[in-house]
Amino acid sequence: MNNYGINIWSDDNFIIEDGEAKINYASKPSLISIVKEVREQDFKGPLLLRFPHITNKQINTLYSTFNDCIKEYKYNGSFNAVFPLKVNQLPMFVKPLIQNGKEFNYGLEAGSKAELIIAMSYNNLNSPITVNGFKDKEMIHLGFIAKEKGHNITLIIEGLNELETIIEVQKETSLSCPNIGLRVRLHSGGSGIWAKSGGINSKFGLTSTEILQAYRLIATNNMSEYLTMIHFHIGSAMNSIKPLKKALREAGHIYAELKNLGASSLNNINIGGGLAVEYSAYERSRFYSLREFASDVIFTLKDIAKQKGVDEPNIFTESGRFISAASTVLIAPVLELFSSEHNIKDLNLKKDNPPLITELNALFKHMTKKTSYEYMHDAIDHMESLLTLFDLGYIDLQDRSNAEVLVHQIIKKAISQLEVEDYEELKKLDENIQEKYLINFSIFQSLPDYWGIDQEFPIMPLTHLDKKPTRSASLWDITCDSDGELPFDSKKPLYLHDVDLNKEDYFLGFFNVGAYQDTLGMKHNLFSHPTEVNVVFKDGVVMFDEINESQTIMDILEDIDYDPSDIKKRLKENLDINTYKILEKYLNDNSYLKTIWSYND
Amino acid sequence: MNNYGINIWSDDNFIIEDGEAKINYASKPSLISIVKEVREQDFKGPLLLRFPHITNKQINTLYSTFNDCIKEYKYNGSFNAVFPLKVNQLPMFVKPLIQNGKEFNYGLEAGSKAELIIAMSYNNLNSPITVNGFKDKEMIHLGFIAKEKGHNITLIIEGLNELETIIEVQKETSLSCPNIGLRVRLHSGGSGIWAKSGGINSKFGLTSTEILQAYRLIATNNMSEYLTMIHFHIGSAMNSIKPLKKALREAGHIYAELKNLGASSLNNINIGGGLAVEYSAYERSRFYSLREFASDVIFTLKDIAKQKGVDEPNIFTESGRFISAASTVLIAPVLELFSSEHNIKDLNLKKDNPPLITELNALFKHMTKKTSYEYMHDAIDHMESLLTLFDLGYIDLQDRSNAEVLVHQIIKKAISQLEVEDYEELKKLDENIQEKYLINFSIFQSLPDYWGIDQEFPIMPLTHLDKKPTRSASLWDITCDSDGELPFDSKKPLYLHDVDLNKEDYFLGFFNVGAYQDTLGMKHNLFSHPTEVNVVFKDGVVMFDEINESQTIMDILEDIDYDPSDIKKRLKENLDINTYKILEKYLNDNSYLKTIWSYND
Repeated sequence: MNNYGINIWSDDNFIIEDGEAKINYASKPSLISIVKEVREQDFKGPLLLRFPHITNKQINTLYSTFNDCIKEYKYNGSFNAVFPLKVNQLPMFVKPLIQNGKEFNYGLEAGSKAELIIAMSYNNLNSPITVNGFKDKEMIHLGFIAKEKGHNITLIIEGLNELETIIEVQKETSLSCPNIGLRVRLHSGGSGIWAKSGGINSKFGLTSTEILQAYRLIATNNMSEYLTMIHFHIGSAMNSIKPLKKALREAGHIYAELKNLGASSLNNINIGGGLAVEYSAYERSRFYSLREFASDVIFTLKDIAKQKGVDEPNIFTESGRFISAASTVLIAPVLELFSSEHNIKDLNLKKDNPPLITELNALFKHMTKKTSYEYMHDAIDHMESLLTLFDLGYIDLQDRSNAEVLVHQIIKKAISQLEVEDYEELKKLDENIQEKYLINFSIFQSLPDYWGIDQEFPIMPLTHLDKKPTRSASLWDITCDSDGELPFDSKKPLYLHDVDLNKEDYFLGFFNVGAYQDTLGMKHNLFSHPTEVNVVFKDGVVMFDEINESQTIMDILEDIDYDPSDIKKRLKENLDINTYKILEKYLNDNSYLKTIWSYND
Repeated sequence: MNNYGINIWSDDNFIIEDGEAKINYASKPSLISIVKEVREQDFKGPLLLRFPHITNKQINTLYSTFNDCIKEYKYNGSFNAVFPLKVNQLPMFVKPLIQNGKEFNYGLEAGSKAELIIAMSYNNLNSPITVNGFKDKEMIHLGFIAKEKGHNITLIIEGLNELETIIEVQKETSLSCPNIGLRVRLHSGGSGIWAKSGGINSKFGLTSTEILQAYRLIATNNMSEYLTMIHFHIGSAMNSIKPLKKALREAGHIYAELKNLGASSLNNINIGGGLAVEYSAYERSRFYSLREFASDVIFTLKDIAKQKGVDEPNIFTESGRFISAASTVLIAPVLELFSSEHNIKDLNLKKDNPPLITELNALFKHMTKKTSYEYMHDAIDHMESLLTLFDLGYIDLQDRSNAEVLVHQIIKKAISQLEVEDYEELKKLDENIQEKYLINFSIFQSLPDYWGIDQEFPIMPLTHLDKKPTRSASLWDITCDSDGELPFDSKKPLYLHDVDLNKEDYFLGFFNVGAYQDTLGMKHNLFSHPTEVNVVFKDGVVMFDEINESQTIMDILEDIDYDPSDIKKRLKENLDINTYKILEKYLNDNSYLKTIWSYND
């Protein structure tokens, strides 16, 4: 039995019942039942299941927690939030998000022109749009057009030149100006791995001197009515609340100072993102609650407003990870188990064996509980020597194979003769006895943050959860890349079940993958996105709202600018029509592997 | 003056002349002249220039070096090579590669079904195809079809089950069997960051025991004639030659042992990839020459063949990085310089200033050469205190701005009063005086290996190379992500020129980006690939063989499954036709930024 840390990371979105991972909502279906239903419709390979009800729950929680605190502290400002599109721009995710967020006026944040076009096309007209990142004149003009369309849009400037461009565009066009926000370059850094987005050397924002210059420029141009927001961001996924408090004091005072200088329309503080998500299956890494987060924001801003005698500002947040991460589960089939253990029947001793082989055989035969450790270490030493002898041509391939078999048998025997506590210890001693699970997915495509920044994701099999997992597992993906591996880590060990894949399927779930992984996904070896399914509940019953199948091989090739008709023409050459027909069928399959062993089923 | 390490990394492909980076080939055009020509055709944003003549040079060098060694050692085997498609699958790269490689019978390696389809469609029929990676029955069947089409194809098996599937497919179809290779799981690990693709715990290959099992299975099924290759790979980009020698001995003996067991058709050793490329602009990181590499391979294999009395095997390599990295240069315009220095005219002292401000002012006025260090450190301490005072509401925004200005002025004055050697020292002391260069590109899209594995790439401006670069530079990309930065590293410092972008353009070249970066490129913030150009020479004159423009915003949105007509319909709402027309024009632009300051030019 092993609960895979579900009590740490799942936030009650998923539960274990009857040995299966289940969705803790409506009819509480098991994930495996959903997987089976999708696969019966002939969608093979890895799956990305999205659960809009979880996104919805997060939006609700965010607003209700902040609004409760506002009531409690008798705070005069309002709470507002936007979803940063860079976290997930896909229509299958964004459209339900906008639908579900409508009742709260939940808005969108855009960080590039393409994202701004999405916001302008799909955001509810009353909900806010904020625009961050570096902007050229076209992008600023787009902001004016969004305002013209009726959007509640704020352009948050990252440098004085952007403000100058806004003034330019206003003079050159007859369009009215969008709201203007100033991104503050904080002295305070954040905590967590993205902390560098805060701090004085941050890529983003204005220094105090530049803020004063910006304010004067705005005032000189009679545009004070448009200056409505101060923005800061101390870094994504902060694990401690302390830096937020410091940043709030700093930004709060800048807000109050500008108010007192005469910025009469300034009434919003945008605190950016930073709300962390629990990714660990081993121990908590986020050391605050949402409630604590909200209280700190409201208390600090109230305090500063009182101290400086200004209005309490409205609060904006741009938390993305908190909203979307939990809503998506990647599910991938195990294709094969590669055991490093060799069976004793593979031992093929000669009449005359090299002395070290004879000795290995003796170690194996005479090992007792007492001599386990010692003999095992001797065996590993001998193995090293035997491999060198092979490289120098002194022993042959059969001897080398015998050495492999004997050494693995010795390790296995040692383990079986020791207590369970030592068992774990022994396993750490020798990494060679791990089981390698070959998984039908690409880490580069589906977990890019694991590759790029060692992001941990909770991993749990969908079934067998009532059985003790006995194998320390390394996970291999199907790319031709040695980096495509989640190696066994004795500090954060993953144990999986010893399943016979000829007899049963075994699927792994990778949780909390709903933030960033989709758009960062890489096409290494030309593997494209998994088949994506929006799972919704109607009257408590599971429905598939939308299915976006993994790309076919031909689509992938067309995507990277091959001409499909040229490829087909070339493939036809030298083939009879029947063979070509089978080949053409393959072109219309997705690029993942089928379950090798059950091809004929 | 600074040659940006060109003597270390460029392999004479690029030279500096008349202050410009030039292509050392044919008419020796400058990179800036090519950039200007492309931009005159209205392709804005970052550019990816590919030079097929460099790929061609690498192929030539690879074959001639190995063939020279073969002659010198009177080696009886032949030299053969394939390009691993995962390194770059794009048709703009692959088609010229195949064209140029024809005279050598240079082939392709495929690691997935989609890559195998490319090889089957475009590889020259006589040139080898090797297939690595995990394979299902469909992929193995594709191998049979490739053979049927007339390809010289070898399926290299990663596990016994793949061999069993080959036998199955042969029995079930009337197609003849492709050649079979066995991937050996070496005991020897590699060197370099990808070393884990070698070694006993590697993701790939068969143990000795499995090799013996595989051989028996092949023999039992009368398929010995198809077993033609032993394959190993000790890891990409090895920086030392020693692990290769060890691996060669190991694999060479496995080859010889199998020959002596009766594998009569076995006549090829595939040594995989591993040939490194020099990415450093600071000191060499590859400690061997291609000549040494080739000699070691041939000498070791000859030695083992002699020792065991077997034929000298043909040699195959799968070097990709060595062939493609140098051929591609990423060129990106600098959009803006963000200086952290504040001008003294921004100082706006009050009649009554907080004591620490008064003291900063005194430090600034009375600093001498002798007191420079001391005063600078005092100033930084005072700055910390003043920031805390601001956070607590004791000083106002103008005071904070004055503190910023004074501290930066003090640092600047200290620098000017010290010697040049100390200047470097001082710069390390205070990171705040770096210049931030905003670059019109996405690191996630164009240099994913920098983000993922800290891969260094040589960086050099295209012009100004006859002037001393004076600014220590951090490079920012235009994504809304704090990871989108190449920060200043005092151990590997990048100095750039202090240019006035109102008066002149300034472009940076990122070199050796021709391996892996294209397909790994991420769509963070929805930035897509740069405009790509194949630059060829006809009668010594530069020609653009093909131009693949960066995706338009609408194409990007369609790619992630938005419906363009729905977006257009929604964008039209509430807009007059003229405004919509401008908006539609923006949709057909690529998503990068224009040069902000020269918009009106």
